[in-house]
Amino acid sequence: MLRYFPILDWGRSYTRTALANDLVAAVIVTIMLIPQSLAYALLAGLPPEAGIYASIAPIILYAVFGTSRALAVGPVAVVSLMTAAAVGEVASQGTAGYAVAALTLAFLSGGFLLLLGVLRLGFIANFLSHPVIAGFITASGILIATSQLKHILGVPAGGHTLPQMFTGLWSHLDDTNLVTLAIGLSATAFLFWVRKSLKAFLKRLGVPSLPADILTKAGPVAAVVATTLAVQIFDLAEQGVKIVGDVPQSLPPLTMPGLSPELVGSLLVPAILISVIGFVESISVAQTLAAKKRQRIDPDQELIGLGAANLGAAFTGGYPVTGGFARSVVNYDAGAETPAAGAFTAIGLAIAAVALTPLVYFLPNATLAATIIVAVLGLVDLSILKKTWEYSRADFSAVVATIAVTLLVGVEAGVASGVILSVMLHLYKTSRPHVAEVGLVPGTQHFRNIHRHKVVTEPTLVTLRVDESLYFVNARFLEDLIQSRVTEGCEIRNVILMFSAVNEVDYSALESLEAINHRLTDMDVGLHLSEVKGPVMDRLTRSHLTTTLNGQVFLSQFEAWEHLRRKSPNQTAVQ
Amino acid sequence: MLRYFPILDWGRSYTRTALANDLVAAVIVTIMLIPQSLAYALLAGLPPEAGIYASIAPIILYAVFGTSRALAVGPVAVVSLMTAAAVGEVASQGTAGYAVAALTLAFLSGGFLLLLGVLRLGFIANFLSHPVIAGFITASGILIATSQLKHILGVPAGGHTLPQMFTGLWSHLDDTNLVTLAIGLSATAFLFWVRKSLKAFLKRLGVPSLPADILTKAGPVAAVVATTLAVQIFDLAEQGVKIVGDVPQSLPPLTMPGLSPELVGSLLVPAILISVIGFVESISVAQTLAAKKRQRIDPDQELIGLGAANLGAAFTGGYPVTGGFARSVVNYDAGAETPAAGAFTAIGLAIAAVALTPLVYFLPNATLAATIIVAVLGLVDLSILKKTWEYSRADFSAVVATIAVTLLVGVEAGVASGVILSVMLHLYKTSRPHVAEVGLVPGTQHFRNIHRHKVVTEPTLVTLRVDESLYFVNARFLEDLIQSRVTEGCEIRNVILMFSAVNEVDYSALESLEAINHRLTDMDVGLHLSEVKGPVMDRLTRSHLTTTLNGQVFLSQFEAWEHLRRKSPNQTAVQ
Repeated sequence: MLRYFPILDWGRSYTRTALANDLVAAVIVTIMLIPQSLAYALLAGLPPEAGIYASIAPIILYAVFGTSRALAVGPVAVVSLMTAAAVGEVASQGTAGYAVAALTLAFLSGGFLLLLGVLRLGFIANFLSHPVIAGFITASGILIATSQLKHILGVPAGGHTLPQMFTGLWSHLDDTNLVTLAIGLSATAFLFWVRKSLKAFLKRLGVPSLPADILTKAGPVAAVVATTLAVQIFDLAEQGVKIVGDVPQSLPPLTMPGLSPELVGSLLVPAILISVIGFVESISVAQTLAAKKRQRIDPDQELIGLGAANLGAAFTGGYPVTGGFARSVVNYDAGAETPAAGAFTAIGLAIAAVALTPLVYFLPNATLAATIIVAVLGLVDLSILKKTWEYSRADFSAVVATIAVTLLVGVEAGVASGVILSVMLHLYKTSRPHVAEVGLVPGTQHFRNIHRHKVVTEPTLVTLRVDESLYFVNARFLEDLIQSRVTEGCEIRNVILMFSAVNEVDYSALESLEAINHRLTDMDVGLHLSEVKGPVMDRLTRSHLTTTLNGQVFLSQFEAWEHLRRKSPNQTAVQ
Repeated sequence: MLRYFPILDWGRSYTRTALANDLVAAVIVTIMLIPQSLAYALLAGLPPEAGIYASIAPIILYAVFGTSRALAVGPVAVVSLMTAAAVGEVASQGTAGYAVAALTLAFLSGGFLLLLGVLRLGFIANFLSHPVIAGFITASGILIATSQLKHILGVPAGGHTLPQMFTGLWSHLDDTNLVTLAIGLSATAFLFWVRKSLKAFLKRLGVPSLPADILTKAGPVAAVVATTLAVQIFDLAEQGVKIVGDVPQSLPPLTMPGLSPELVGSLLVPAILISVIGFVESISVAQTLAAKKRQRIDPDQELIGLGAANLGAAFTGGYPVTGGFARSVVNYDAGAETPAAGAFTAIGLAIAAVALTPLVYFLPNATLAATIIVAVLGLVDLSILKKTWEYSRADFSAVVATIAVTLLVGVEAGVASGVILSVMLHLYKTSRPHVAEVGLVPGTQHFRNIHRHKVVTEPTLVTLRVDESLYFVNARFLEDLIQSRVTEGCEIRNVILMFSAVNEVDYSALESLEAINHRLTDMDVGLHLSEVKGPVMDRLTRSHLTTTLNGQVFLSQFEAWEHLRRKSPNQTAVQ
């Protein structure tokens, strides 16, 4: 029970202090979430209320099932972008079909996450390497910011890739609405200033840290209020400024995702990608915050928590959600102690949905776009290119491929190509493993590469340390290598394969070892193994190899060396 | 020059003895190839002469570019089956488009093989693990034998999967032509008897080994002659026995593969699969035969040889070819010394194409089908299931998936699912690596698993030997593992990661190591590395890790142990 309902754990010891802290955090997060929720709904191509609905039921469900104390679940930028890309393929924006498809996406995503959680398959998130994630987040940030330029210009351009968006903007450049542009640019400039300089400015004015912090977080609210009032007072909607308009004044409605086979079929792959990306983003945030307080996150239970949250979104008029970085950090910094803070945030947003929605009638879309642009430019971090370039060309090329394909082809293709390239490069690297010929480091029982260290060798005895697990991708490589090394020197009587770095021998490699043994027997050369690890040895003893091997299996390389050297009369030479 | 034209190597030292041996081998192989070529063309859905044409130019081109002395190139069963499956998707059997598509397939396959050879990318064949190949060949044998039953029954059933074929046969069962069935069954029985018992029978009669061998090889020719005469004499074609009919009497024609974008687009993936399967089959045969005479095969040059052979097939009325197992072994056993034997075989087949084709007018298809069935049942070897089951469940499931998908869905899906499953299982295994806590084997400098060996340990010092390369798939796993091990015992002062089995640390794992270092520093625990291999150390020194590491990097684990133990006052305990 405790495993599936973490709430039973923290709920039992809930204190008055924790309650107070959670309430303060909830107020701050609610203020921050109102404009953000509207903005991300806009990014996802959905009506503004969908963003608020997506923050209510999901937060509560995560509070029941999630293991992180500080994670705040709801719409996030990258997932909103992926939602727009996926749903845009099956329906047009503004139609009822579009909203239903978004519900279906949340439903499929929630179901997939739950399934992974129950089957404890959270490890599949590991297929996204750090460089691929970093590249994808950066590219998404660029795409999102670009996608908002149309709202700043007030033109109806579309597109899901960078070239499409720029072509769209370019062809509509003459239609730019100058009033919208003025609102958009000033909101953007103001929000950048708030982000960069407001806190320092307030501190210089002598404002204490906490209120300064809250004021900084309320920056987007100020922009919303100011531009809304400007539109209302000067009747700017008449001048062509696009506004949010009517937002229904209601609690989240009960909705049904569409489950027709065609819809499910075309949204299944995007749903899986959204789930995995969302899970990786969420778990990284949760683990970072948990480590600061030495708390533990259970990745499999997190899958269940996020799965429940997405199912909640699917049935209450939302769209796919996950644990967001910005909102979670704000929640943590504001002092949230338990998931109850999330529940209080949900109550705050429910009140906003019922009472405050008429107030945003005159809110210009350009302001929401400015909020998004300022938020996502923080995601863009091209330093990953330099870091991976210096460390490893393989990782670098995975980053470049992910960024380029995401920008030029789309988000799903971007993630997929990053993952596939990472896997291919890893397999390629292991297909030509490093094999070191080793000798004894004098005065020790330690063996190292004869080309890197001053070691003792013995001409009749070759020891090869294979620096890779042996499996189908490199099985033939080993055959060729030993064949060519042994035919090089006629005096070779014994070959030792030092297996200290061999973590697996699969069936293909077993057959290769049998072939090697067979050929060396024909050439009257002994084949020995040393330092075979327990799990590998267990498996080899189940095969014929250990009985047909023409040599011995030694516990340590030193033992093999001592034994086989004693048998041969030649002298040793220090290289 | 020598690299790309191996003919310059053996051609220079060609002797009279070699010539005599090559001629004898060529005669034997030619006799065997005439019925086989006709039969495989039938299997591929092509007119019978295509099989002979596919054996002429390709053999000569392989003799110029190939490195194997005994490999015989031409149509083979598995590739013929794959050709039928691929070409059947774009054209109907018997149409001109069908033959053109087969040429295109050979052209694409040849181009792809040449490209791989020039780029020296032969390693991609390694993605086919031994179990996947064994499973695929077995399943293909079953499919091929089943596909020939319609010729034995004399009914027009079709289908490319086992269920389709059986449904087809079942629905046509009433149409069975009893005369055809009688011919087919007796030919099959006769060929089985020839294969199993003729040689022993002839030896008992006192026939020397070589003639007995040649007579056995000529078994299919005897079946062809007998059934052809029977059809001609008793006018069985009138009774509905399907016969080969008119075969043009000509040398291979000059043909052009179709290169329209749609055709190329729909045949590209099958062509790549056929190339890879054909290459793997061919290189295995070539290496087995070369090893017997201590000759060397250059896999990249083999790609060029097979590529040239397939291009030759594309322009001379053939279809995809590769080095066949049966024909190569016969060639080798018959004493072929150089690729000139292949060239003489080509001359023999050219003579057959011009002079002998009218003789096969009355040859019943049922006899060809019997030839195929007897040949391919030798491919079916279900023992791989037992062998892999005993050795490794992962390899076993790859075999089962390959066999099941090949039989039920098709040859391309079968290979693809085998490869994908092998890769996924490998990644899954490496995602949860074996990590051993090790201690010192008393009286040595050797460290082994504390749970398997009697070793000395030290309570303040934990040494973890990670038995896997560290890369994105398992980077987070290591973080979790160390975190939980260190929080287990409060007295732990130092952690040594023994890197003897770590062959790679990619960027994701580097970030994980940095995170581990950071957390351990916070907990006042030292993090040390030991036995880091040269290539891994080279890379780590390029990162920040070596400077930020709170502990040291030791050359050997023993050195680390001695150094860190001296610093702590606790006693050691033998477990």
